[in-house]
Formats: sequence, C-alpha cells, structure tokens
Amino acid sequence: MAAVSSSDFAPPPVWVEEAARSMEKFARDHGALGTRVVLITSGGTKVPLESRTVRFLDNFSSGRRGSASAEYFVQAGYAVIFLHRHRSMYPYSRRYSNLNWMDALTLGPQSSGEQVQVDRSLVPGIVGILQEYRAMKESGRLLPVEFNTLSDYLHLLQAAAQALSPLGSNAMFYLAAAVSDFYIPASEMPEHKIQSSSGPLQLTMKMVPKMLSPLVKDWAPKAFVISFKLETDPSILIERARKALATYQHQVVIANVLDSRRSYVVVVTNTTESRLSVSEEEDRLGVEIEEKIIKDLASRHTNFLECQ
Amino acid sequence: MAAVSSSDFAPPPVWVEEAARSMEKFARDHGALGTRVVLITSGGTKVPLESRTVRFLDNFSSGRRGSASAEYFVQAGYAVIFLHRHRSMYPYSRRYSNLNWMDALTLGPQSSGEQVQVDRSLVPGIVGILQEYRAMKESGRLLPVEFNTLSDYLHLLQAAAQALSPLGSNAMFYLAAAVSDFYIPASEMPEHKIQSSSGPLQLTMKMVPKMLSPLVKDWAPKAFVISFKLETDPSILIERARKALATYQHQVVIANVLDSRRSYVVVVTNTTESRLSVSEEEDRLGVEIEEKIIKDLASRHTNFLECQ
Repeated sequence: MAAVSSSDFAPPPVWVEEAARSMEKFARDHGALGTRVVLITSGGTKVPLESRTVRFLDNFSSGRRGSASAEYFVQAGYAVIFLHRHRSMYPYSRRYSNLNWMDALTLGPQSSGEQVQVDRSLVPGIVGILQEYRAMKESGRLLPVEFNTLSDYLHLLQAAAQALSPLGSNAMFYLAAAVSDFYIPASEMPEHKIQSSSGPLQLTMKMVPKMLSPLVKDWAPKAFVISFKLETDPSILIERARKALATYQHQVVIANVLDSRRSYVVVVTNTTESRLSVSEEEDRLGVEIEEKIIKDLASRHTNFLECQ
Repeated sequence: MAAVSSSDFAPPPVWVEEAARSMEKFARDHGALGTRVVLITSGGTKVPLESRTVRFLDNFSSGRRGSASAEYFVQAGYAVIFLHRHRSMYPYSRRYSNLNWMDALTLGPQSSGEQVQVDRSLVPGIVGILQEYRAMKESGRLLPVEFNTLSDYLHLLQAAAQALSPLGSNAMFYLAAAVSDFYIPASEMPEHKIQSSSGPLQLTMKMVPKMLSPLVKDWAPKAFVISFKLETDPSILIERARKALATYQHQVVIANVLDSRRSYVVVVTNTTESRLSVSEEEDRLGVEIEEKIIKDLASRHTNFLECQ
C-alpha cells in the first residue's frame, strides 16, 4: 500500500482521514443490510505545477457520466459513494448545470411575504426532479466525497477501497474519473509561481502509478471492478481496453470515444464485447446511455456474485 | 495586429465574430450616451495539450475578483463587458456558488399548484441580491461574453479592444483574467490523446505573446488600462509590478499575493503606490476589497480624463 504514501505526493490532509471514516461507516451500515455498495469516481484531477499553486494540468471531464450514473445506481438499489471533483456535476442538479438560477427566480407578490419562487417555465421538470433528489437524500444511499488534486484523489481511492473491502463481492468500483497519467513529484516542484520571464517552459512529468493494480490485487481483491477507457482514435479503442483487462485482471472495461461518448460505448470483458447505444429517437425522449450501462453492469454484478 | 492571427493559434470561430459585433454595438450605444465602458476579463484560460483535447493546462482562478468587480463597476455607473471563462463566477450568482440549489428549493403546498420556493433560511439575502441582479439586467449595462481556451481569449480581447477604441479615454481595460504565459503551438500539437504507455511526458511550451503591448500601442492607445500582477512570493511583487508598467507603458498595475489577495492589494502607478485593505471587522460586515479597488480606479479614471 506504499504506492500513495510515497514522498512524491503530499501526505493525506486531516479531512481525508475524516472522509475515510465516513466511508467506512457508510459501507458497514449498508453492508449490514445486504445492500450492494458502489464507489463511483467522477470528474478530472488537478495536477499542480507549483507547490503554491497558480498553474495546474487538468483533464477534460465535466463529471456528467459519473453524476448521471450515480442516479441510476441509486435507482437500481445500490448504496453509492460518489467520489467527485469539487464543482463537477452532481446527481440531479447536473440537469440545471447551464442555468443561472438568478434568471430562474422570481419575487412573489408582497402579500405573500416576498416569497422567492422558481419560474417553472425556465426550469422544466423541476418538481419531479426535486422529488427524486429528495427521495435519494432521504434514502441515505448517497455519500458524496470531494477531491480536487490528483493527490487527494489517490488517497481517497485507497481509503474507499479499504472501506469497501469487507463487503467482498458485494462491492463494486466504477472508476469513471479522468485521472491524470502524469504528475510532477512534490520534491521536484518549484515552490513559487514559475516566472514567464525565464523563457519557454520545459516540463518533465512522471507517470502516475496505476492504482488499479493494488486495488485489484491487494485493497479489495474480491470486488467487481469496472474501469473506463476514453480515446479520441477509435481504431485503437478495443485493443487498449483488452490490454487494460489483461494487465489489471479486473472484470470490465467501458470503452468509449470522445466524440460519441454520450451515445455509444462498448462493454468489454475477457470473453465478450457488448455494444450499448442510444438512438436519436431515444435521445429525444431523454434516454441516457448511463441508464443502459448501469442496467447492464448490475446484471453482470449479479452473475458475478452467483459465480463466487 | 498579427499577434493573434498567427498560425500558432486556432483561427477565430464564427461565434467570436458574432461576439465582436455585440461588443461593437454595446460600446457604440453606451459611448453615445457618454457612459464610460470597462472591459473586465475574468477567470483562467484553458491551454489544450492535444488538438482533440483530453488534457489541458489551466490557471488557478475562480473568477471571484472579476465577477465581484463587475458588480461594483455597474454600481459606479460604468457599462461593463464581462469577458469571462465559461462556468467561472458570475456577478451576483457568485454569492451562491457553493450552494446546491436542489437543497435550497422546497415544494409549496399542493393547494398553491405545487409552487417551487426558495428556502430563505438557506439562501440569506436572496431578495436583496435578486433585486440588484434584476436592476443590473434591466439597466442593460452588462454584456457577458464567454471564453474557454487561451485562443478564444486572445481573439476576443483583440475584438474587445477594437470595439472600445472609438471611445478613446472613456474606455477602461481591467485585465483580471489569469492568462496562461505558455502554450503549445497548433502546429506542434498531437492530434490524439497522448498515450501514457509512451513513458514520462516531456512538454515544451512556448511563451504566449503579451497582448498588453499591442493593446496599449495600437488597439486602444487612448484607453485607461489596468493589469494585474499575482505572485506567491511577496518579496518580488512591487518590483514585478513596476517592471510591467515600464514595459507596457500603461496606467495601473494591481499587485497582489496569492494568500492575501482577498484582503490586501497595492495599486501601483508610475509615481505612486497605494495600499488598499479590508480589515477583519470590515470582512465580518461583508465589505469586499473589490469595492475599494473600483472606487479608487473610478476616481483615477476621472483624473486621467481631465488630464487629456
């Protein structure tokens, strides 16, 4: 378990320890009820270039897939640890992520004591979505945990894996976050803002240790583990997914291409390749591909449990 | 004006041309009324590392300073072009940037036809702030324009400068955006996602041309121009601010240190250094340093106009 505690990364801050305890309690409580628990990771990681950070490397990810998946996992009966990038999309509120709420609120008549109301013509479906959000909160089956930097993420992933390990095969990992492959070790990072007057910037970034390896081997060896493979070049997609399965020995890779990721994915296992897609007609009706992905995975998880 | 149109950057997309026309009309209309017009830039720029972008370099900036400043400039009688990073903080709604609106909304009684209301205990001051937001919108004195990448930003800055140039000294530039100093030229950028299996990442980034130079010399030579200097090392702050004034020959540098930027800045001109700060007592009362900065700058702008 030395991978993350290496001196290359900042030591875990106190709030990580607190989050670790919350995740342990959450897993224990839901595990005791026989509920399956999934860890969803969502959003991109921030990789600082300076220790007092002005500049950082980031990965393209709005957190749309992870936050949508959280909704469908809760609906499918899972308890969800939602490990997400600070300010990335969040279950249910993601549906209004382009809305400026200042535009959507109106002042009611004075007689009502100046109620502030939502203009429902500007916020379609708000009543139903608010009810679903409330139901999710009241069920107690969503535990949100935030990260910002790559270092936060790595510490929290390890803590989450340790929290879920006692659940054995009832635990699922759904690793949808866009985690940086590269970083600058703490020991090689300049303290202060890099001065532009020093000329062109030369950066040498080390490769981030692949956490999937200790996760599958040591941290939660009985769990059902899904990773994601996002490429921009469709021609190398399936080959890269197969290579990841061979290397890490986990159960499923969801393979997708940047441009079509909202309408088409391939669910790759050691022996199968299943294509899932959302047609234009379904898209118009509001069907999301995450609904199909989660249905597929929940069923595979059931088979996985039966084979243990 | 060749700086931005160089082949190092993507050519301006169609929406930039549209934004340019909106800015021209806005400047012309307000200029005709004798209103001073300020261009505020706000938020960080995204610098893609791949042309189908998965990874990018970013600058730390929530857009808090720019969005707060926009409010105080409107209050001071200015018309404001608010050139800001997509999803960065926005005037007024910034005050609720940590709020999940799903938590703040409640369903009213069935008899009222299921009104959705704001729980005002969770959203302090909402009535007053909503009124100020409405007043700002109705005044027509805020034109929001969005950017995402460094390339968007550079094209839009040039377009804004050309739009404001006819206003002469009535135009102000308040350049609070955290603009990257480095980029990878379009011609040297890989098309596809950089493969982590290729080993450690070596990046060589060119220096971004300093737009302040053509802005002051050619694009809007009569305008009142304010740039920002953010450092993490206080010992080099004033020297760096003075150097910028000497190099670009503009009017004001607002110098600030990362850790204390919300409570302390130095307004540096060729001949003066004025310290502005917010005391702990003022902070408790909700006083923001941007209110003091804008009051100071509006008065300097008046003097500047009288000296022309």
